[in-house]
Order: sequence, then structure tokens, then C-alpha cells
Amino acid sequence: MKIALAQLNYHVGNFEANSQKIIAAIHDAEKQNAELIVFSELCICGYPSRDFLEFDDFIAQCTNALNEIAKHTSKIAALVGCPRKNPIKEGKDLFNSAFFLYEGEVKHITDKTLLPVYDVFDELRYFEPNNKFEVFEFKGQKLAITICEDIWNVGNDNPMYLSCPMEELVKQSPDIILNLSASPFSYIQHEERMKVIRANVLRYKIPMVYINQVGAQTELIFDGGSVVVNAKGEVTEQLKFFEEEIRIADCGLENADLKSEIALIHDALVLGIRDYFAKLGFKKAILGLSGGIDSALVLYLAAEALGKENVMSLLLPSGFSSDHSLADAKQLCENLGTKYETVPIENNYQGFIQALNPFFKDLPFNVAEENLQARVRGVLLMAFSNKFGYILLNTTTKSEAAVGYGTLYGDMCGGLAVLGDVYKTQVYELANYINTSSALRAPSPKGEGNTTPLIPQNIISKPPSAELRPNQKDSDSLPEYDVLDKILFQYIEKRKGPKELMALGFDKKLVDRVLKMVNGSEWKRNQAPPILRVSPKAFGMGRRMNIEGKYLG
Amino acid sequence: MKIALAQLNYHVGNFEANSQKIIAAIHDAEKQNAELIVFSELCICGYPSRDFLEFDDFIAQCTNALNEIAKHTSKIAALVGCPRKNPIKEGKDLFNSAFFLYEGEVKHITDKTLLPVYDVFDELRYFEPNNKFEVFEFKGQKLAITICEDIWNVGNDNPMYLSCPMEELVKQSPDIILNLSASPFSYIQHEERMKVIRANVLRYKIPMVYINQVGAQTELIFDGGSVVVNAKGEVTEQLKFFEEEIRIADCGLENADLKSEIALIHDALVLGIRDYFAKLGFKKAILGLSGGIDSALVLYLAAEALGKENVMSLLLPSGFSSDHSLADAKQLCENLGTKYETVPIENNYQGFIQALNPFFKDLPFNVAEENLQARVRGVLLMAFSNKFGYILLNTTTKSEAAVGYGTLYGDMCGGLAVLGDVYKTQVYELANYINTSSALRAPSPKGEGNTTPLIPQNIISKPPSAELRPNQKDSDSLPEYDVLDKILFQYIEKRKGPKELMALGFDKKLVDRVLKMVNGSEWKRNQAPPILRVSPKAFGMGRRMNIEGKYLG
Repeated sequence: MKIALAQLNYHVGNFEANSQKIIAAIHDAEKQNAELIVFSELCICGYPSRDFLEFDDFIAQCTNALNEIAKHTSKIAALVGCPRKNPIKEGKDLFNSAFFLYEGEVKHITDKTLLPVYDVFDELRYFEPNNKFEVFEFKGQKLAITICEDIWNVGNDNPMYLSCPMEELVKQSPDIILNLSASPFSYIQHEERMKVIRANVLRYKIPMVYINQVGAQTELIFDGGSVVVNAKGEVTEQLKFFEEEIRIADCGLENADLKSEIALIHDALVLGIRDYFAKLGFKKAILGLSGGIDSALVLYLAAEALGKENVMSLLLPSGFSSDHSLADAKQLCENLGTKYETVPIENNYQGFIQALNPFFKDLPFNVAEENLQARVRGVLLMAFSNKFGYILLNTTTKSEAAVGYGTLYGDMCGGLAVLGDVYKTQVYELANYINTSSALRAPSPKGEGNTTPLIPQNIISKPPSAELRPNQKDSDSLPEYDVLDKILFQYIEKRKGPKELMALGFDKKLVDRVLKMVNGSEWKRNQAPPILRVSPKAFGMGRRMNIEGKYLG
Repeated sequence: MKIALAQLNYHVGNFEANSQKIIAAIHDAEKQNAELIVFSELCICGYPSRDFLEFDDFIAQCTNALNEIAKHTSKIAALVGCPRKNPIKEGKDLFNSAFFLYEGEVKHITDKTLLPVYDVFDELRYFEPNNKFEVFEFKGQKLAITICEDIWNVGNDNPMYLSCPMEELVKQSPDIILNLSASPFSYIQHEERMKVIRANVLRYKIPMVYINQVGAQTELIFDGGSVVVNAKGEVTEQLKFFEEEIRIADCGLENADLKSEIALIHDALVLGIRDYFAKLGFKKAILGLSGGIDSALVLYLAAEALGKENVMSLLLPSGFSSDHSLADAKQLCENLGTKYETVPIENNYQGFIQALNPFFKDLPFNVAEENLQARVRGVLLMAFSNKFGYILLNTTTKSEAAVGYGTLYGDMCGGLAVLGDVYKTQVYELANYINTSSALRAPSPKGEGNTTPLIPQNIISKPPSAELRPNQKDSDSLPEYDVLDKILFQYIEKRKGPKELMALGFDKKLVDRVLKMVNGSEWKRNQAPPILRVSPKAFGMGRRMNIEGKYLG
């Protein structure tokens, strides 16, 4: 059977746009003589629809769109994801379902069995799990239809679940597994996904067609990368990452051109920025460019995502800014061809110092004055944002967000935190990757040895500093990032407590200090902009902590 | 049997403080000859512990504390809530359990069966549901031990659940139901709770001892109000609301002294502020006092919660502030006996206008300049906060938060949003309640007719205004609050879509406008301070929406 894989970018709740996209894909596949086109999980409303699912009106719109789409399936079948009302009173009100449409009507419905509730997933909040299993026969082929998590309990080996849909379906001798997914990116996700897909096809000895959503929904970035894997575990079709694609699966083996982890993170961040703007209807971004590596990286990524003509930088020097900061920032804008303006903050800063003088009197310079500088910058950036319609991009890294190294309403301002799930050590890796790959794309006419790095080397090599007091370095307040990031990774990604961290060789004092900083910053992170998720455990919707919890605090 | 009800205020993750409190209560009850003392759900770690529960080290500390507490039960039994490891591999790693401790050891364990996943609850994220049911006999009495939600499916009539613990337990002829709860306040919660408790005792014809947690955990405010209800449905013990209490249940009928809805909201907000400060280790609050009703109400509540000596107001007049604003604000501070300082914002505002002039040129005054004023105020308040250690209280109401009427990083600054779940119409009710009840508490020596209202009448009667441009009124940008709040209530609390709202008699244009404002403000609310929850559907952890969703946007 000729099956089309539709890997598309949906907009949550935009029924018109999603339906048009789905209908166009159906016609496209029909022209290419496909017999069935398979879409991703909950494609009609977009994934995740979150608490919109609690509105009867929202569900009614899903059903209307489904009926409209069904009309276009007279010659080709379509398998689409859509929520449906639970017909019985007991249990949650909805199922997370896949509708098999053909000859203008619904021929079969499959409900999702394994509903994830961990990290960023909340599916049991909305959906009742399925417990009936039935393969569906179409044109002589028995289809085992599964939805995302349904294939993630291979042979009942995932301790999170008590049932396994494929163990039930295999009793009915299916010919092929179809899986409709909405599986968000993290830098380990593709590997995990391929392990699970291979384990399924090898166990059940039938091929799998796996369709994933693509596109970002604020924090969550769906990477696509849909595949067809044959019964021997070989990838016979590999769709693109981070791009829409419709592929007819009838060709031979094609090896996947897999990118490095850091290249995938790069692509994910670019898509994350692009979709945030596209889906909210914005065009132009602004950011504060300090001459440091974090804002340099965000500027580069924003220019990639939105076009260099749509990204504006403000250079906001203070009395504590070093000479090279301005020069490096300007050099970067020239390299990238992006606009910038310079707005010195000294006058506004001194204006506040004067206004506060009757109260602060001769109390010593401290964090109040440091934060004041960051907040003056925030006010200026937001004024440009309000006047000219720019969206402010935040440049905080995961390392800084973790330990609370940043000023709330100052450098923590912004509509989107581009690097909030990228550790400082990964920021350097990304910068070097960009310089290398941009050099490869545009070699100097005089040969490779002569290429100027896109991100000036000085930005990469200087020691990190917030420049809020004379000769300040990040290392005055924080451990060196290479040590800090390792502790943070074990605590945040691996949930290791103090004793386990010491067993890994970290010093007790250092561990106590770092954990205290992380737990004592929940109140700050609570007001941070949404963060593009690229790791298996990001700050944001997937990590739910108490602000006033005392544990290790 | 003499049973002690321990209604206590726990601090999430503060094992030392929680254990000491539990042990002291055990000794106290023992002295009063109680045979059993019952604590609330998950009292050892505090509820909700959220993702701390994913740390093995956190669970190990729970177990250590449990073992320590058990040592104090040689003469009196104690029933305490504590998570426990799931001994089998399949399913979630933990149970939400109640441990029956006696003679220094664990005599019986009950695991929670019904695990809520809706609104603010996430229990299936962490816990495996129980499916074994066993009454426990102690001193000749058969105890049906249940945990919170376990009693909320009376006779299997709650469509959310497929099982009913009491229907199973009743087969073993229990003498009494014990329920360990952590049931957060909303203004309808006590009524709902009493309905459920009465339905249980009347159906099973045995009494219930119901123990609830008290105290706030950032957004969630636990109101206590524990009860003993006899088999006829009569309340024989009613513990206090919003206060700790240990009560020995062996006395006769005592009628509950129930307060009005608005009085309960008042008490909840005071406790919410007090516990936020106490549990984070803060003492002093600051806020911007505009002369309007929202900040007036927050000042009063903060003075109640923290003591008038710990609350500081800044009066931050601009060129657009009306004369009465300053006078009314000063009068209020005098009535309450709280400190204030005046810091005019005009110079700093003009400083920014000058700095921005090369870019803004002669573009007309708009939201950029309005927001600038709010942000200058934010910077000044945060400077006081940083220099003197005040926590900034936010004064945004639920009506404003809903429609995005506020300036991010300006009047949306703050550590805690006191009124973020209180509609503007309820703000007026609260102010009138405070004026009435404070007049009752401190009658004028010359008789009732002569009392001066605590909150000056002018603050209550003037039309609401942000005062960010000449003669501005909230009603320039928003529908009148009495209409707006009704639409918001139906959309937010009742999840009614546009058609349903029109069926309720609201104008189509108005509905479209309001819903667009609400859905278009998710990005703003995403960075708002945590909100004290007093309604059944508050902004915050219990309402999970897409920032870039398009539905009704």
C-alpha cells in the first residue's frame, strides 16, 4: 500500500488554518496516488491544546473540522488525530483519538491507551485511557493503529504503565504499525525514539510508519523526523527535522543524514524562535547586546530565524562597561548585517540614584545599584518594544536561570527566553559550531585559513561578566561554569540529592551552595519568560516546584 | 475512643520543623488522654510537594522523619500522611499513604485510591492508585481510613472516577471513617466539602473524623475547618478556619460559627500573605499606593497579615496624578498607622523621554509612554526592595489580570499577587466589609453614627483610573467592571464558549472583545507573580493555557 506521511506544523486552536493544511495535504497525496495519508497526533486542534480541552465549544470546533476534512476522503483514506467526547459518563470527558476517514465518513476510531503524566505531559488531566484493542483492515492490510506513547511500553517493560497496546493488537496479526505522534524535541529524543521504534518492529516482526508533529508551541519544539522502519529495523524513509514534509512511502532504503547534538539544538532554537513569532503574529525582535557571548548567540539565532532585517540590537553601555564590549558588539552586528542603536544608560541610572538619595543616603553600593542598571536597560528595551512593535528576546542561559544569576525585571525581561535550557558550556559549543559551519558555508576567497569568524573570537574568549560594578566577573559570585554546569545537570536533569552528588566526587560545601542557589531562585524563575525546551528536563511547564519549599533551601 | 484532630500548618520539605510540630502534637494529645491522634494528608513533607517527590533523597528524608515520629507513639497511636515507595516495579514509583503508628512501629498502611488530576492537582504525575481495601481494628473499633479525594466519589456518583473506596470498605463493617485531607480553600470549598462529608455519613451510617491541612503554600491556601460529623450528618466538632488547632473529639454538639463568603476570602488572603512571608523567611512588605482601591485593600490586608510596622508604602505621583490621589493615600496610611514615603516619578520619567527622543522623535504619545511611567514606579519600588529587604506586593486584580490591563515589569511587578484571584467587584465588597467590620471592632466613643471608615470613602467611590494620561478612566479601555466580571466569571470559572455566553444574554461584540483580550494576555500572565487562590478557578498552577494558542484569540 502506498502511504503518505504528513509531517506538518499546526497552530493550537487555529481550526481554519489546520484544516486547510490537512485538506491540501490530502489532495496532494491523492495526486501522487497514495491510498492512505497519515497525520500526527491531535493534528486538528494542535498539540498540546492544554486547558482549551475543557471548553465544550473547543471540542465542538474539533468535531466540525473533522467532518469537513472527511468530505475530502472520497478517493484516498486519511488517518487524523482529534479529541472525541467519551460517550459514557464514567471517567474523563474525552479520548485522545485517531479517526480513520474514507469515502467521506469515519470508518474506524482508535483511542490512545497510554497517557503520559510526567515532565511536560498532562494527558490524564484531560483524557480517559482506552482499553479495547482492534486492528483495522483497509485494502487487504491489517493496520495496528497506535498513538504516540502507545508504543513506548515495549513488551510491558516500561515500569510507568500496566498495559501494552501492541501486545494486545499483535494477537490479531497486523501487517503494519501506524503511529501518530506529537513527540517534543530534546537533544536525546531522536535516539530514544529510534530505540523504541526498533524494539517494536523487531519484537512484532512488522514494519512501522511513524509520523511526528513538527513546529514549536512556545516552550515545546516538535522536531518531526518521521520515519518508516521495516521489519528488520532498517530505516527505509527518514523525513526532515524541524521542517514540514509530505513523503510517499514506496521507495527503497535511504540512510538518515543525522546531525550532531549541538547542530540539532541549533536547529531547534531557530525553529522555536521562528514559530513563536509566526504563531503570535509578530515579525520583529529586539535584544540588548552586551558584547558577551549569550546575547551574541541570541542575535545570531534570531537573525537566522527571522531574517537579519527583522532583528534590532540596543547597545546599552554604562560607566562599568569595558571598552571592548561596545567594539565587539558592533563588530558582531556588522558581521551579521543587523541594525543596532547605542543608548547609554548613565544619565537614567544617575537620575534614579538622585531620586533615591534621600532614602539610600550613604548606604554602600550593593545589589540594589547593580539591579538598577539592569532595570534601566529593561525599561529602555521595553520602550522600544512598545513604540515600534519589537518583541524583546531574553538571553539568560540555563546556568544563570538555575542559580538565579540575573535581575528580575532587568535582564530577565523578554517575551521568549532563547537560551534558558542551554547551559553556559553549551553556549560556547554552539558559538564554535556556528563559526565553523558558517565558515564552511561561506569560505573566504583567499582560502580557509583566512575566514573571519562570524562571532568575533574576542566575544568567545573573554571571561564572562555582567559588568554591573568595576572589574566584575561571573566567577566572583559563581563557581566556574564547567564545574557548575556538571552539578546543575546532575541535580536538574538527574534529580540527584546532596549525598549522591558527593558520591560523584563534588565537594560538600560547593554542592550545598549550588543547591541552595537553585532552590532559592524558584520565585525568580516563576516570573521568567517561557523557555525553549531542548533538554529532557527544562525549566518551565515540565518542572513544577514550590516557591516556598524548604528542601535543600 | 478519644480521638485528637491535629489541624496544623506544614512547610513543604522542612522535615525538621514538620516533625517537631507533629511530635509536640502527639505529646499534647497524650497528656489530654487521647488514644489516637490523626494528622492531615502528607503532613510529614507538606502538601503539595510537587516535583520534590521525584528526588530519591526527598523520599528518604520522609522515611527518616516517619521513623523518628514512630518512636513517640508508645502510649498513643498516630495516623500520619507520608509518601512511600511502590514496592513493585510496575506503575508509578510512589504511593500517597497514611501510616498508622503505635507502640513505636508501623501497624498499618493505607494508600490513596482516588488521585485527582484537574485544576491545581497533579497526583497521577507522582502516585500509583491503590486497589486494595482493608479496615484496621484498633482498641475494638474498626477504622475506615481514607485520604482526601477517596471520599469524593460517594456511591460511585462522581463521573471522574471508576472506583469508590468506601463502597469496598463498608463491606467490612467499619465503625468510623477517618479522612486525612489537604483540601485547598476556594470560596465554595467548605460548602462542597460538607455536602460530600454528609453524603458519606448518611450513606454508610457511621460518623466521620475529617482532618484538613491549614496554612498557605504560595498560591494554595489551606483553610483547615476540620470536622467531626456523626452518623446523622450533624457536625459535633468544628475546628477553626485559617488557624492551627488540636482538638480532642469527645464533647457534644457544637454549632459551627460560619462566616460569609467575603469574610472567608478576607481571612484566606491574610493567611496567604502571612505564610508566604513566614515560609520564605521574609518580614517586611512594600507596595505602591496610588490612592485607588486595589492598592488600598492590599495595604490593609498586608498590615493585618504582617503587622502595621512591617508594611511600607511608596506614593509615586506623576504629572497625571490627580490631587485627591495623594491625599487619599496619605489618609489611608494615617488610618492604618503605616509608614509611607513620597517619591515623585516626573524627573526619572522625563529622563527616559530625553534618552529616547533621538529614536521616538515626534511620534505621538501612546502605550509606550504610559508603560514607561508604570515601569519607573516598578524600578523605584524594586530599588527599595533590594536596598532594605522589603518584598514587593502586587495589587493587580483578577479582572485586570484577565484582560491584560497592566504593565509587565511595571505595576505587574511583585513577589506575590494578593488580589489576582479577586474580581474588581469583589474588591469593592471586601473594602465595604473591612470598613463595616473594623467599625464594629472599634466603635467610636460618640456612637455608631460617628465612626470614620478605615478605608476612606473617596477611595471606594471614585471611578477607577490608572492615571497614566490626562483624565484617563479604566472605562475608556474596558467595559464597566460589573458587566466585565460577569463575562469573565462565565468564561474562566465556567468554561463557557462564545455561543454559550451569547445565550446568557451578553452582546456578541462585547463577548468577542473580552475573550480576545483574555486569550491575548496569556503571555503577560505567564510572567505575573504567583496569585493567592480563593476561587475554584484561579490564574496560576490550576489553569494551563497556551501562550500562542489561537482559539478565540
